[in-house]
Amino acid sequence: MDVHFDHAGIATEDARDLAALYEDLFGLEAVHEEKFDGMRVVFLDLGDGYLELLEPLEEGTIARYLEKNGPGIHHLALATDDIEAALERARDHDVTLIDEEPRPGAWGHTVAFLHPKDTGGILLEFVEH
Amino acid sequence: MDVHFDHAGIATEDARDLAALYEDLFGLEAVHEEKFDGMRVVFLDLGDGYLELLEPLEEGTIARYLEKNGPGIHHLALATDDIEAALERARDHDVTLIDEEPRPGAWGHTVAFLHPKDTGGILLEFVEH
Repeated sequence: MDVHFDHAGIATEDARDLAALYEDLFGLEAVHEEKFDGMRVVFLDLGDGYLELLEPLEEGTIARYLEKNGPGIHHLALATDDIEAALERARDHDVTLIDEEPRPGAWGHTVAFLHPKDTGGILLEFVEH
Repeated sequence: MDVHFDHAGIATEDARDLAALYEDLFGLEAVHEEKFDGMRVVFLDLGDGYLELLEPLEEGTIARYLEKNGPGIHHLALATDDIEAALERARDHDVTLIDEEPRPGAWGHTVAFLHPKDTGGILLEFVEH
């Protein structure tokens, strides 16, 4: 196995409210919060990864997603220790890359997204910590 | 923390095709396949959990989901070692339960679903192995 679960990205109108609900309901603890790329981003510890709560603070991808779909699961992220190699493998399989090159993501990670049209309808993100 | 990541459930028209793609793309291995509740279900090992690929073999929830939304992420499952207590806690928080009582799920697990209207738009499943 070359990758493992890193997080599920959740689009929400209010990341702190949803974090409080998930702490109450499931005992999940918020372990990181930051403003990143026009969003409030809150990470909840899942033990084997995270829930990444994404609240738009201005127009952008997540704001448009919420307008179209309402709140819910936005993407899945797979951790890799070699994001360049993971992207190269995707490119070799003719997967459309949203990010041709790795770029800075939340929490200081390096990320790159693959287009859902070539991954079974799932917006997939590679993350290198 | 009372729960941890168990799997992401993926709705697909062809679970074996998607499993083959994800093995090629990500090195993920199919570790279990069964027919369950009118679906072909394939589990891919994510190290810290699974991807659960759900292909409808007859009319039902997943067939309707695909007709409405196309393929993609259908639900998130959280593992617990006490599903009765997890359901009771959700009930105490006035979360609408799809399953009032735990029921048999794929791979011999015991499962119960919470309604997305009370969980931030996410279809959440409790799983007890």
